[in-house]
Amino acid sequence: MSHPHPELGPPPPLPEGGLRITPLGGLGEIGRNMTVFEYGGRLLIVDCGVLFPEEEQPGVDLILPDFTSIRDRLDEVDGIVLTHGHEDHIGAVPFLLREKPDIPLIGSKLTLALIEAKLAEHRIRPYSLEVTEGQRERIGPFECEFIAVNHSIPDALAVAVRTPAGLVVHTGDFKMDQLPLDRRITDLRTFARLGEEGIDLLLADSTNAEVPGFVTPERDITPVLRQVFARAERRIIVASFASHVHRIQQVMDTAHEYGRKVALVGRSMVRNMGIARDLGYLHVPGGLVVDVKSLDDLPDEDVVLVCTGSQGEPMAALSRMANRDHQIRIVEGDTVILASSLIPGNETAVYRVINGLTRWGANVVHKGNAKVHVSGHASSGELLYLYNICRPRNVMPVHGEWRHLRANADLAVLTGVPRERAVIAEDGVVVDLVDGVAKISGKVQAGYVYVDGLSVGDVTEASLKDRRILGEEGIVSVFVVVDSTTGKVVGGPHVQARGSGIDDEAFGAVIPKIEEALATAASNAVAEPHQLQQMMRRAIGKWVSDTYRRRPMILPVVVEV
Amino acid sequence: MSHPHPELGPPPPLPEGGLRITPLGGLGEIGRNMTVFEYGGRLLIVDCGVLFPEEEQPGVDLILPDFTSIRDRLDEVDGIVLTHGHEDHIGAVPFLLREKPDIPLIGSKLTLALIEAKLAEHRIRPYSLEVTEGQRERIGPFECEFIAVNHSIPDALAVAVRTPAGLVVHTGDFKMDQLPLDRRITDLRTFARLGEEGIDLLLADSTNAEVPGFVTPERDITPVLRQVFARAERRIIVASFASHVHRIQQVMDTAHEYGRKVALVGRSMVRNMGIARDLGYLHVPGGLVVDVKSLDDLPDEDVVLVCTGSQGEPMAALSRMANRDHQIRIVEGDTVILASSLIPGNETAVYRVINGLTRWGANVVHKGNAKVHVSGHASSGELLYLYNICRPRNVMPVHGEWRHLRANADLAVLTGVPRERAVIAEDGVVVDLVDGVAKISGKVQAGYVYVDGLSVGDVTEASLKDRRILGEEGIVSVFVVVDSTTGKVVGGPHVQARGSGIDDEAFGAVIPKIEEALATAASNAVAEPHQLQQMMRRAIGKWVSDTYRRRPMILPVVVEV
Repeated sequence: MSHPHPELGPPPPLPEGGLRITPLGGLGEIGRNMTVFEYGGRLLIVDCGVLFPEEEQPGVDLILPDFTSIRDRLDEVDGIVLTHGHEDHIGAVPFLLREKPDIPLIGSKLTLALIEAKLAEHRIRPYSLEVTEGQRERIGPFECEFIAVNHSIPDALAVAVRTPAGLVVHTGDFKMDQLPLDRRITDLRTFARLGEEGIDLLLADSTNAEVPGFVTPERDITPVLRQVFARAERRIIVASFASHVHRIQQVMDTAHEYGRKVALVGRSMVRNMGIARDLGYLHVPGGLVVDVKSLDDLPDEDVVLVCTGSQGEPMAALSRMANRDHQIRIVEGDTVILASSLIPGNETAVYRVINGLTRWGANVVHKGNAKVHVSGHASSGELLYLYNICRPRNVMPVHGEWRHLRANADLAVLTGVPRERAVIAEDGVVVDLVDGVAKISGKVQAGYVYVDGLSVGDVTEASLKDRRILGEEGIVSVFVVVDSTTGKVVGGPHVQARGSGIDDEAFGAVIPKIEEALATAASNAVAEPHQLQQMMRRAIGKWVSDTYRRRPMILPVVVEV
Repeated sequence: MSHPHPELGPPPPLPEGGLRITPLGGLGEIGRNMTVFEYGGRLLIVDCGVLFPEEEQPGVDLILPDFTSIRDRLDEVDGIVLTHGHEDHIGAVPFLLREKPDIPLIGSKLTLALIEAKLAEHRIRPYSLEVTEGQRERIGPFECEFIAVNHSIPDALAVAVRTPAGLVVHTGDFKMDQLPLDRRITDLRTFARLGEEGIDLLLADSTNAEVPGFVTPERDITPVLRQVFARAERRIIVASFASHVHRIQQVMDTAHEYGRKVALVGRSMVRNMGIARDLGYLHVPGGLVVDVKSLDDLPDEDVVLVCTGSQGEPMAALSRMANRDHQIRIVEGDTVILASSLIPGNETAVYRVINGLTRWGANVVHKGNAKVHVSGHASSGELLYLYNICRPRNVMPVHGEWRHLRANADLAVLTGVPRERAVIAEDGVVVDLVDGVAKISGKVQAGYVYVDGLSVGDVTEASLKDRRILGEEGIVSVFVVVDSTTGKVVGGPHVQARGSGIDDEAFGAVIPKIEEALATAASNAVAEPHQLQQMMRRAIGKWVSDTYRRRPMILPVVVEV
């Protein structure tokens, strides 16, 4: 991938009194958000999330931030502030705490409940400090103040970090719904007060910086749900994220209004909604929620199912319903609502699910044909409000691919931030705030760390490159057995192909060419297995390319007996 | 994939006087459109296009319709009507003509020019019959009438097919822009006349049947282009489809207005625009277009480049510019316009290109942040006009995934077509029009035919399944050399892995397990290589699964010497 900061080396020592900000994830991608603040030799981490793999990372389960640059300094970490409970902000915490379990976690009530449930699965009991909006906490040398922000999960916080180097504000994920269901708005009065005080550096969510205008209020979804419920003849199945409490709240309220019972399907949905209800974030009318097993006793028109799988995940309930591989059998007249975003890269999978559901006769309502989703991230109009209220001296866009970071920086510049004070960094690019000026000072290691099955970091870029070639072109393996004393071929050449689209029999034609290559080798006194392998690779590669215009991976092996 | 017509067998013989319609592509996917009409033992084909592969078809270049069901009947084909010149309507013609080169092609002037240029590359000179809107031609027993329709390429036609079985209308791809650049509107007066006469079956484009409302006029893009041109400081690079003559026309006109020269980049862009200009579909002001080589002599602010690559195709000019792998080096201040759709499945690739371009400082304008694209397919509002004007007795939605076909059928039903006369078929599902009633009568073979490199059809579903496993999990090959007389292992076990994320050294731990398996085999007098291979496969598979929770492909080979 091209890179505009290729010349950067490791950063120099941080000048005394300076604050260093190192993004280890989330700058260059949507996900694995993690920012490290350093002051006076101490570290504060904000968020520690995972990134979900795309098609260029085949077979990978999760992608983590690279902890290399702080691995030897975990004793200097005073805490991890978690801005909210989404996976891309908390999902990598277990992997970091595995290395040092006693780093304190700081977050709101719901955020901590979600990370604690996750850590319990990893058998880790963290040291947690619950905070709420308006609260100030000194965490090492970092004076933190927590600010309410509105997002697509309740109880999200922004954080202001004061050190002698200045006042830095990190928004976390946020938007500015002025009429949120829980009436907990993004606290612009506090942002204004901090702006009056003087914000030296503002790190703001870039996800929707390219999107014109303003995000529609979450509550505008209820009238759409009502329309769908009014028309629905049989069951209603709603797929959403398992953390979107306010979306599920609206589904439950609408179900209640229309006299339907609600069953939650799927482990994460049941667990998260249980936590949200226990903590008072989700309000469930008595008797509304029933067990999925009791659905057989209810007429179809009295049923709402709430499940995950809105991104087309093949193992989730919704995909299995689309494939008739689930106890819930979709029939003509069922209604399915995908009350969720469509994350780029998931389109094909999601459309496959929609096609499967409509084949069985379901009426599928999704963001392409009805307003059943609003984003959780501020659009450009909202970001302009933020910049004008905060009037920061420096900005550093966070949470986004390069195009989002760039669009966010452009918005800051439009409000009067000088272009040279709008610092577009990337993962690993170190920004130092010294004497009120934020500048890039170097680069640390911040590559992708792949989780695949039980292993963390064993799958490398080289393995993925091999996988991509294997997946596109298949493999041809060839081997021969050579007498170690005479150098004579005593077994093979034996050719096998997988995924190449070439019949094993067709390779009959290449055997003479391999034998010829081996004979040439013998006459030139070449006997090293490594060299013989190279010659076989070339002979087969040329034949496949000439005959089929393809380039499968070729795995030549010579065994001496 | 689930299937609502699993019970269908081969269709019975077509009743005398009936018309048979067999879609061989385009019903269940967006692409490879091909419909076969049969009357009185003769065949008429409408369109013969390709489908572009998605991530589940790794390494595949193109997907063709399956010609199996007509392969023995090519002598009975009276012609191939090509509705317009897009690849998904003409791209498979060379592969069909390769089997029988003298099947006549019927189409408009531009359509024939494009297919002839393509066939010339395959060294085929077709028998062509040029037709124009309003014209009637008897093609075998099929009385064809051609109707002007508006689409995202000029000179598109719908076709009405009259046989004693009734009047059938196939729209091809169309929309109803009321103010198209070339003033050639979809000819609703003719559709109305045919409706008066009585349309027995209407096959209509489903692509945008889920989209509410109406498509914006193509000409509304000019004011957006003007805004972008007015702001642009340096070069402007426009990426679009190489067939979108009217989009390129607007770019050229705007360039002319702003005193810029235009250079066309890329073989298909140069070829198609040459054809369009020669035939009078593209109007190029004198001196506007310059050779790309002469750009060095022009100041940046006088330059517009028009290229392909708007879908993120890795080898296209635009991707290579994003990667600094092209003679055109993107610099701060350049403007890139993606004046094109974003085909589902291409999002990741397109966003990667946008990120690459913005990294080098380009300002990227795309459909996500400006109105630089309108669709070429009728939205639901336009389809309602079509159905109300035509009032067909039966409908059969074409061109779409199941969800689109279903949405299109629902629109027809809303206008009064009885539900049982809205036939949702799929590729290979045979529909017979007998006595004015269209009904599904059976199913013929209509699977995907994969083109990979030089081969057509060699890559099977099984090869693709292997590729998917190889691509997700990698491969572990293991082999041993066995003395054929004693059954003793004389070489190996030798283990090699690719793309597994497991070090070759780590396999040291599994060697004893393989040896153990082989020893057990020997003590049980198992000596068949096939059985030994199975045992080795199981030993390695279990070890990898237990140790790493992964399932690579395992390729065990036993060679006897």
